[in-house]
Amino acid sequence: MKTMVVGGAGFIGSHLCDALLANEHKVVCVDNFSLGTKENIRHLQKNDKFTLYETDAADKNALDEVFDKTKPEIVYHLAANSDIQASAVNPDVEYRNTYTTTYNVLYCMRKYGIKKLFFASTSAVYGDKRDVILDENTPNLSPISYYGAAKLGSEALISAFTYMNDLCSLIFRFPNVIGPRLTHGVLFDFIRKLQKDGSHLEILGDGRQTKPYIYVTDLINAIIRFTLADDVKRTGVSLYNLGVDGETSVTHIADMLCEEMGLNAVQYHYTGGEGGWKGDVPRFRYCIDKIHKEGWKAEYTSDEAVRKTIQNVLNTSSF
Amino acid sequence: MKTMVVGGAGFIGSHLCDALLANEHKVVCVDNFSLGTKENIRHLQKNDKFTLYETDAADKNALDEVFDKTKPEIVYHLAANSDIQASAVNPDVEYRNTYTTTYNVLYCMRKYGIKKLFFASTSAVYGDKRDVILDENTPNLSPISYYGAAKLGSEALISAFTYMNDLCSLIFRFPNVIGPRLTHGVLFDFIRKLQKDGSHLEILGDGRQTKPYIYVTDLINAIIRFTLADDVKRTGVSLYNLGVDGETSVTHIADMLCEEMGLNAVQYHYTGGEGGWKGDVPRFRYCIDKIHKEGWKAEYTSDEAVRKTIQNVLNTSSF
Repeated sequence: MKTMVVGGAGFIGSHLCDALLANEHKVVCVDNFSLGTKENIRHLQKNDKFTLYETDAADKNALDEVFDKTKPEIVYHLAANSDIQASAVNPDVEYRNTYTTTYNVLYCMRKYGIKKLFFASTSAVYGDKRDVILDENTPNLSPISYYGAAKLGSEALISAFTYMNDLCSLIFRFPNVIGPRLTHGVLFDFIRKLQKDGSHLEILGDGRQTKPYIYVTDLINAIIRFTLADDVKRTGVSLYNLGVDGETSVTHIADMLCEEMGLNAVQYHYTGGEGGWKGDVPRFRYCIDKIHKEGWKAEYTSDEAVRKTIQNVLNTSSF
Repeated sequence: MKTMVVGGAGFIGSHLCDALLANEHKVVCVDNFSLGTKENIRHLQKNDKFTLYETDAADKNALDEVFDKTKPEIVYHLAANSDIQASAVNPDVEYRNTYTTTYNVLYCMRKYGIKKLFFASTSAVYGDKRDVILDENTPNLSPISYYGAAKLGSEALISAFTYMNDLCSLIFRFPNVIGPRLTHGVLFDFIRKLQKDGSHLEILGDGRQTKPYIYVTDLINAIIRFTLADDVKRTGVSLYNLGVDGETSVTHIADMLCEEMGLNAVQYHYTGGEGGWKGDVPRFRYCIDKIHKEGWKAEYTSDEAVRKTIQNVLNTSSF
């Protein structure tokens, strides 16, 4: 099948390209390299089933040209600003890179009659509902970050475009995703700090911020299975919380990291407060019954995903 | 108080300008006259508390200039595309006139430290949930029109901007609004058709599309009361379904119109099907307990609002 991955050179997008190619599909990769990197897809450039367009999906005319040339059968839309702290400083980033890219993808799908969409959404659409176990029917979605707002707005667009144009759309609300090619987040902050000074570690907040972390290959397996398996016969919008067993606290991440780095006398200094930064949801828990009922389950628990990523990051050359 | 009404020359916006001025407030009216008209605000132009900016709120720099010059204490954001049938043909209209205007208003409020916002939302955010009595906790909002999607996306933006910048935001989800200065909708279609041929009336759908209609002065009274009364001490986002007693079917609108026009032998021809057009929600009902508990209630029922509007429209010179 001819597939398009918008944001295909990013952390998650590049793993999706790998998996689609491994499954013998053609991949049209669209990326503007604002967060994605050439490094992430260098190993794919010689694959004749892989085509790269260095195109900004926020530029409607440019994206339209790529659709016109390539006419994919399914679009995986993973382009977004993924750095909540960055857009807290300038919300334009979300308006442009998260919401407008979604609008443009849907506009082009409508124009070229493309019916199948996968969209990467997020737990951030729920807002701060730390005392609720979040399921797909949780009401009053109230994002507290510009990122969550742009993703919820994108879901709303998908709802209307799907109805108006008879699309078949799959939305996964991701938890925190980690694994090889990750570029930012608490783990990286900690590693950088510990490499400067292996005796002390400043931890934003009270360290009790606790979230589920999914390993990227688990996530990709779910996307492939739900979009390409032969028995997939969905219509309209299907939406799932994508989750794993367990959650991991920030302090536990620090503990695992120190252990893997062989540092056993690190003093933790907490900046205090419940959240790491404004717009961050300090704790959330997913109900993942809906996706489990479909027969899918993550291989790794949250703690295992974190430890695997730590080992992976410490083994790469850049650290 | 210095107020800004974005979309202040529109049907609802101009009534709001009237009411704010009647309450001795200053009004900065921003409109691009895409749907609003000079006619709607002609009577205000000599009022020295009224200032008009012919500015497109979808143009961020232009809107920024108006904020910079005027620095209002409260912003009423009513600019939007209100014609769902028009945007079904070209969804760009909603991206630009409904979503982007909201983003720009919030961007400017953040930049200039303005804390109070009123936002006109809509029943269309719920999508087609015809068998549910819609209250503010109804889950799974799934708009089926680009209009509903852009409004739900706007609500999501307001949620994040309010949290991040300590705003005080009030959102009313309007039902159908009618009254003087209305420019389009089923009533107008019917009048035009009956003026051409008073013996037959084509009715889109099966005529059983049934919605609550609120008279515009009732709506304006609620907005004024909830944003400007001395006892208003809200923080964060407050959201209400704004509704009336009863609902009115399309066939009943035709009946009332024929009666008021003195036509008593009109043959109705139904085009059939449940909805008037794709993206139209054929029936909805609101639970309005939440706003009633605050002590507000509409003066007119839905049927009364429709009949009053019919009488008003038939008495104006343009018909």
